[in-house]
Formats: sequence, C-alpha cells, structure tokens
Amino acid sequence: MLNKMSMKGAASMKQVDVAIIGCGPAGLSAAINVKARNRALLLIGPKLCSPSLHKAHKINNYLGLDNYSGEAMRQQFLKHVRDDGIEITQVSVAGIYPMGDIFQLQIRDSFVEAKAVIITTGVSGGKQLPGEDEFIGKGVSYCGTCDAMFYQDKIIAVSSDGTEYEDEVEFLAEVVEKIYYLPNYEVTATLPANVEIIKSKIQKFTGSARLEVVELENGQELQVDGAFLLKEQLPLAQLITGLELADKHIKVDENMSTNIAGVFAAGDVAGRPHQVAKAVGQGQVAALSAASYIDAHK
Amino acid sequence: MLNKMSMKGAASMKQVDVAIIGCGPAGLSAAINVKARNRALLLIGPKLCSPSLHKAHKINNYLGLDNYSGEAMRQQFLKHVRDDGIEITQVSVAGIYPMGDIFQLQIRDSFVEAKAVIITTGVSGGKQLPGEDEFIGKGVSYCGTCDAMFYQDKIIAVSSDGTEYEDEVEFLAEVVEKIYYLPNYEVTATLPANVEIIKSKIQKFTGSARLEVVELENGQELQVDGAFLLKEQLPLAQLITGLELADKHIKVDENMSTNIAGVFAAGDVAGRPHQVAKAVGQGQVAALSAASYIDAHK
Repeated sequence: MLNKMSMKGAASMKQVDVAIIGCGPAGLSAAINVKARNRALLLIGPKLCSPSLHKAHKINNYLGLDNYSGEAMRQQFLKHVRDDGIEITQVSVAGIYPMGDIFQLQIRDSFVEAKAVIITTGVSGGKQLPGEDEFIGKGVSYCGTCDAMFYQDKIIAVSSDGTEYEDEVEFLAEVVEKIYYLPNYEVTATLPANVEIIKSKIQKFTGSARLEVVELENGQELQVDGAFLLKEQLPLAQLITGLELADKHIKVDENMSTNIAGVFAAGDVAGRPHQVAKAVGQGQVAALSAASYIDAHK
Repeated sequence: MLNKMSMKGAASMKQVDVAIIGCGPAGLSAAINVKARNRALLLIGPKLCSPSLHKAHKINNYLGLDNYSGEAMRQQFLKHVRDDGIEITQVSVAGIYPMGDIFQLQIRDSFVEAKAVIITTGVSGGKQLPGEDEFIGKGVSYCGTCDAMFYQDKIIAVSSDGTEYEDEVEFLAEVVEKIYYLPNYEVTATLPANVEIIKSKIQKFTGSARLEVVELENGQELQVDGAFLLKEQLPLAQLITGLELADKHIKVDENMSTNIAGVFAAGDVAGRPHQVAKAVGQGQVAALSAASYIDAHK
C-alpha cells in the first residue's frame, strides 16, 4: 500500500522555481508577477480561490476596477491569470519541508520541488477546536496520506470539508479498521463499508498522553486512536515547521520575507488590513522578492 | 506686498481630514480609500499625476487590468477617482508645518489645514546639484512666496520647471532687483523687465558662508544673493522638517506610518520595488491608517 503511494509520488514529481499556495488576490498577483519575471511556477488553491471575494457584495476601493461586485472582480482576476497562461492546481498542501536549498511540498500522494514558496492562504480558517493543538502529532493529523500507517487496524474519526477528500478517506479506510466519518457536506458517494457516517461535528478532543476521545456536538463520545481533520486551511504553524507568527498572522518584513529563507507570505495571511489592494500589492512584492532570492542562490 | 499675500492666504484657508500629496497610483488609491472611509480629503498633484505611468509602454502585472498601456491604465485610474467625486488640485506644496494636532500645508499663497497627511510624491525628482544641499537656507530656496522678503532689492537666479511657476516668478520680480531666469521649458509669456532669460542650466552652487555664485553649464558664473529652484518635487527632507529617510526613501513601518505622527507615505517614495500594484496596496494601507489615526485623536 505505502509502496504504491510512494511510487505514484515519484512518478508525478514536479520541479518549479516558485510554488504559490493560495489563489486569492495575493496569490494571483504573485503568480502574474512571477510569470512576468519568467520563472516557472505552480499555483495551488481551492475551488473558488477566494470564497470571501466571491461573496463580497460590492468593492469600490481597488483602484481601476470601479464599482465591481466581489464575484465580478474575482472573475476579472482569474481571467488575467488565465490570459497569462497560468493554470491553477486544485489540491491541498499537506506540508512544506525544507530540504537544503529547495522545498518539498507534499500534495496528496505526490511531491513538488520548489526553490521558493509564497504563502497566500488568506485568513486562517476558523479557530482550532479545544484540545486540537494539544494532540497534534499525538492522535490529531491533517493528512491521511502522510500518517495513515500509524493507524493500521485502528479506529479513527475523520472530519472532512468536501468531496475532494473522499479519495483520502477511501485510502484511510483501506488501512484502518474503522472510520467514524464526520462530513461538513452532503455525502452522495458510496463509501467503503467500514466508514460510518455521523451527522455531527467535533466539539472537543480529550485524552491523557494521546488522544482517546472525540466528543461530538450531538453528545456522542467516540473512543478513537486518532482523528484526521481534512480541510483546506491548515493551522499556519502546521504548514511548515518553525514559521514565525505574530498575532495569528505570518510575520513578514517589508520584502514579504518570513523568518525562513526562501519562504514568503502575502495578503490576509500576512496581517491586516484584510483588503484586496493591499493583498495584490503584497503579492507583487513577494513575487519579486522570491525571484531575487532565487537569483541570489543560483 | 507681504500683507496682500497673507490676506489672500487667510481668505482661501481650507480644512480637510486628510491631505494627499501626489496623484500617481499610490495617491489615487489612498484617495478612493479615504473617500470610502467617508473622510474629507484634498488630493494634490502635478498635471499628468504620474509621468512615468503616462510613458510606460505596457504594464501586465497589475492584477485585473490585463495588458494595458501605461496611459490607458492612468486614464482608468483617473476615471475611478473622478467617478468617486474626487477632484485633483493641481498645485505644488511648498512645505508642511506641524501645528499641534494639525498640519498646515503651504500651497503657493494659501494654506490648507489637515489632520493627517499622506505623501505619495513618487521617485525623487533627480539628484541634487553640487552645493545645493550645503546652501539650503543660506541662499538656496524652493519657495518664492515663502522666502521672497529675504531678497528685497537683491539679485537672484531662478530655475523653473514650467509655466505654472511664472506667477511665482512675477511675484519675485516685484520684490527683488534682478532675476537671472533659467527655464527648463520654452518661455512664451512676457515676463517683467528685470527678468533676464538665460538658456542654460545650473551646474553648481558655490560660496563661503552663504551662496555667492551660480555656475551654469554654458560656462557663465552668475554673482547672486540667492537662488530659487521652482520644481514639482522638492528634496524629501525639505517637505517637512524631521522626516526620517532611509536610502533616499521615506522610512515607513508596515502601517505606512513615518516617524512623524499623522504623516504617512506610500508608493515609490516609500521604497522599492517601484511598481504599480505595490503602490496601490500601500496607498490603501496609508489611507486606512490615516483614518484610524484621526479616529484615535478625536
């Protein structure tokens, strides 16, 4: 099983200059600026790219796009990126691993190598649940592909934000004995027989040295060996080890450099104000800084 | 004479929340964002607002305006500002004077009061001439209206970047004995009889305790008591006393605050990269910071 996974990984290894994680205004701006500097890039992001832009009724403070709805602005931004020949890859990044001069990004069952990384994942996706942080690495995981082997023939809970994680659930179901499945969406697919769907949400994680119980909003207490939280936005600190945060944002300098050389951040994830123009400007600066960083490390 | 000037000044005194100096991408973005926060603003800038944008052949890295010429982008930006009901006032600012909680901006022969100031004057207008910095306040001046009285019945040299300074030249001609006039443009107006036009440029300022000689590129050496340099872009340090610079740019923090409370800067004047998206983003941040500053000082 794991051999199959790593062979698949090796087959789909991809190398780029700059990997951009997130395709909201900051990520899209970073992408067209990396492209303008003639660098190979990978642009990764969720389905709508920027759900908050998609929902915004009217935005009138982004210079040049006068009186646009959020959705019209989103479409205009995506058109610009498409016209530049840039594709958006719709996957989640499970982790970023520095390997000497390059970074390995784990994306489902494959890896991508990048010389520099720009993080533009937006505002953190909600607060963590009680106990979540305490049991990270002690029962709580964000990546089925990465951590399945630790739960062979065990019982786990899995929460999931959408159908795009069902592949990962199926893989987990092959490895573990039983899954309590907590989907944040309407399941229409037929899942493996050892997957029990429960229509509730996680309220709390408890245990002693390791996670033991997942308490649900409906009052159920699930006795488990582990819990997988499959969602778009990982806690920032989980994305890359040692990334310095400041007040729940990634700490950046005026060049959008983080404390890790070669890793840049831009947009809402890099601090307030959470506004389109600021995000677009920072995306540009991050892109030019990443290109300069690569030039300096040839 | 000076009474007449100050009476005119008093008659045209204007009060605003935020004065924005410069109408390139950073200044225009600041303006629409100050307006969005429902603050009274004064937007001041030169004729083309952004000569470098006007000249740019093609700009493809400002997200949403795909494949625009610089001039088309400039027009699109100005349209957005006009549609927001914002006017651009075409004058030069001779100086900014902190007066307790407010700032007085000297604009030709009048003053404007502002609670906060955003400086977006772009890249500094060329380097200073040899001796210029040495003789500032000792013969070299940037404002006829401010300093004319020091040169009553004396001989001065005046360099000028355009017809818009001819009013100031006429006023100086009423006060001083003689003007050597060095226009950086074709003069078509009839200037007063004591104004001698010389078609050359200043090469160097020399003197001992004070300025004594203006050396020209054509080899002439003008014996003078003073020299007025009438141009759009003052040396940054001359705009407001005590403004902290870093590497020829205004030093700003992540909120676009300068070292002077209530004074903000954005765009090229606040550092590299000199790019449209970065300028627009910083203009937005400066505007929101200025609005917050005013709220905190009510």
